[in-house]
Amino acid sequence: MAAIGFQILNTDEKTAARAGRLRTPHGDFDTPVFMPVGTRASVKAVTPGQVRDAGARIILANTYHLFLRPGADVVREAGGLHGFMRWDGPILTDSGGFQVFSLADSRKVSEDGVSFRSHIDGSEQTLTPEKSVEIQHSLGADIIMAFDECVAYPAERGYVEESVGRTSRWLGRCVEAHERAAASGKQALFGIMQGGMYGDLRARSAEGITSYDLPGYAIGGLSVGEPKNVMYGILDGCVRLLPEDRPRYLMGVGSPDDIFEAVARGVDMFDCVIPTREARHGNVMTARGRMNIKNARYERDYGTLDPGCDCYTCREGYTRAYLRHLFKAGEPLSATLLSIHNIRFLTRLMERIRDAIADASFTDFKAEFLLEYYK
Amino acid sequence: MAAIGFQILNTDEKTAARAGRLRTPHGDFDTPVFMPVGTRASVKAVTPGQVRDAGARIILANTYHLFLRPGADVVREAGGLHGFMRWDGPILTDSGGFQVFSLADSRKVSEDGVSFRSHIDGSEQTLTPEKSVEIQHSLGADIIMAFDECVAYPAERGYVEESVGRTSRWLGRCVEAHERAAASGKQALFGIMQGGMYGDLRARSAEGITSYDLPGYAIGGLSVGEPKNVMYGILDGCVRLLPEDRPRYLMGVGSPDDIFEAVARGVDMFDCVIPTREARHGNVMTARGRMNIKNARYERDYGTLDPGCDCYTCREGYTRAYLRHLFKAGEPLSATLLSIHNIRFLTRLMERIRDAIADASFTDFKAEFLLEYYK
Repeated sequence: MAAIGFQILNTDEKTAARAGRLRTPHGDFDTPVFMPVGTRASVKAVTPGQVRDAGARIILANTYHLFLRPGADVVREAGGLHGFMRWDGPILTDSGGFQVFSLADSRKVSEDGVSFRSHIDGSEQTLTPEKSVEIQHSLGADIIMAFDECVAYPAERGYVEESVGRTSRWLGRCVEAHERAAASGKQALFGIMQGGMYGDLRARSAEGITSYDLPGYAIGGLSVGEPKNVMYGILDGCVRLLPEDRPRYLMGVGSPDDIFEAVARGVDMFDCVIPTREARHGNVMTARGRMNIKNARYERDYGTLDPGCDCYTCREGYTRAYLRHLFKAGEPLSATLLSIHNIRFLTRLMERIRDAIADASFTDFKAEFLLEYYK
Repeated sequence: MAAIGFQILNTDEKTAARAGRLRTPHGDFDTPVFMPVGTRASVKAVTPGQVRDAGARIILANTYHLFLRPGADVVREAGGLHGFMRWDGPILTDSGGFQVFSLADSRKVSEDGVSFRSHIDGSEQTLTPEKSVEIQHSLGADIIMAFDECVAYPAERGYVEESVGRTSRWLGRCVEAHERAAASGKQALFGIMQGGMYGDLRARSAEGITSYDLPGYAIGGLSVGEPKNVMYGILDGCVRLLPEDRPRYLMGVGSPDDIFEAVARGVDMFDCVIPTREARHGNVMTARGRMNIKNARYERDYGTLDPGCDCYTCREGYTRAYLRHLFKAGEPLSATLLSIHNIRFLTRLMERIRDAIADASFTDFKAEFLLEYYK
């Protein structure tokens, strides 16, 4: 039995955008979808109920962090992530691949896997494709990701070429480890395309990962510091190499322009720390662009953050003046209220994108929205 | 018209404990009551809705902090604290007296008032009885406090004597400033007894403040470092000097033993930062005493914090293992979930105290509860 099912409901005529529905053991959600990030089994500063109320239907958690602390066994014994963090909706876990390359110290990559030092306590650790899958089985997310190597940007072609081959071989080992396990009927394994900024290596990676019949495919290694036109160029070439009838997930992307550009190219799933991280810096996403709440101009601004927003923070009448005060005073409620708003901003954007795809107005909506947001 | 009304509903036969109801322009609440502290117009790490759900019916905010940041005008223009922080229930503000003496730098006390340097930006500031009342009118709390001098512990008798006289004279000026203002019908001014650890000076202070017919009286300057038996001894002597038919408020007290001892002596109102401050240190109040959630023994403890507790955190099934993980990982949700629990612990304790007074079991309940909590 397949753990998940994907159905395309509407397609756009002018672009490759499509709206669909993804069925998981913990409920369905509509795509294109934005997934808030709960790195350490908590979307920072908000309760699961607040995350749901902000319109999120699926969240992401990080294998690397949870493997190091509290450890996969502690989560497994709690009934997996769903039981541990009290989120009963769909969850996706990444494989640890990206974090090993962005956070860990003294990293050594071999054909077997990656050895590294924990960024928390300096302890020596190893992740392999089999180990990553095993941890993700313990975490119990509805969607789990293949263990991949995310190369730095910029990277030498020779290294990327070697890495793409390794990531494909690692995928084979992930698939094997996943199929051996009892959990395979309840968890869906996605493959990840890599290839850096080399179009032909992206194609080779796509070929490698689609040689396995998987329920979904991700695009990794983008939005890692490259110029936006480079990223969009790569997307142009590589989204179409992924099967039409499977969900496509662009990892780590969450700014409105990137989301629109990727949706227009046929991407269905997104995750990013943007809404919560920006909130902790006082940055608020609104229909008219980003505002920083600590700006002196908001000192006596008794309006809500974003007129027309239906998030808890705006709905309850918290004013810019109050939110500025909380931020300036270092009150923890500041991160909570701004995170709720920013998450809702993105989930609402996705709702509007889905509606626009359904009623054939996606291109117009995209132009209008971006004009107003980045003016 | 009186801003508030107080009615005694039940009295205990064996002690001076009494249960009552206090009516305010923003709703009624039952006494004895515990008030969580929202120093800077926010109960730390929790939303007003979560505070209410945790059983709190009245909260406290600090004049000193709000005067310095964001300033009384910003709060007034937002519709007072109720509008500013989106809490529509009763609010009490202290006068700034205690904070000036505990937080500010370069303090100089004169008959006129206190000049000091802000602990935030070092700016020179002055608070006088008139100024404190004026700020509290801007903040708009249902109950406001007289500007007093809270002497340090230990303090020389000569200084305390002088200070008690000054605090009484300042009360006269507060009363005058309050009666002159239009807000006096909507806000109730309480006087504060001082007198350090000198019983006769407490009596003199009581005489001074009760010479004004006020809707409530507070006891300040206790729980400032003195041994518990000294505090209880002072309480023995001074509670009975306050009028029977007015609410009595013991400022800054919130540990279960102190609450029980004060209730037994006829105190009706309490406030303390204990539930939220302890939560931020991982300390959890339970029926069987305090536990520190970071203890290794909770690593795989999949029980709730306090069996039988009906707070959101316990009700939703967050386990000790998860809460330990959040705390150890430094996740902000930790403070939220533990604060909710600790606030509920104290509001529930007050509910049980009120019930025990009503059904004549207060003394038994006190003994049982304290035995279990401090065993």
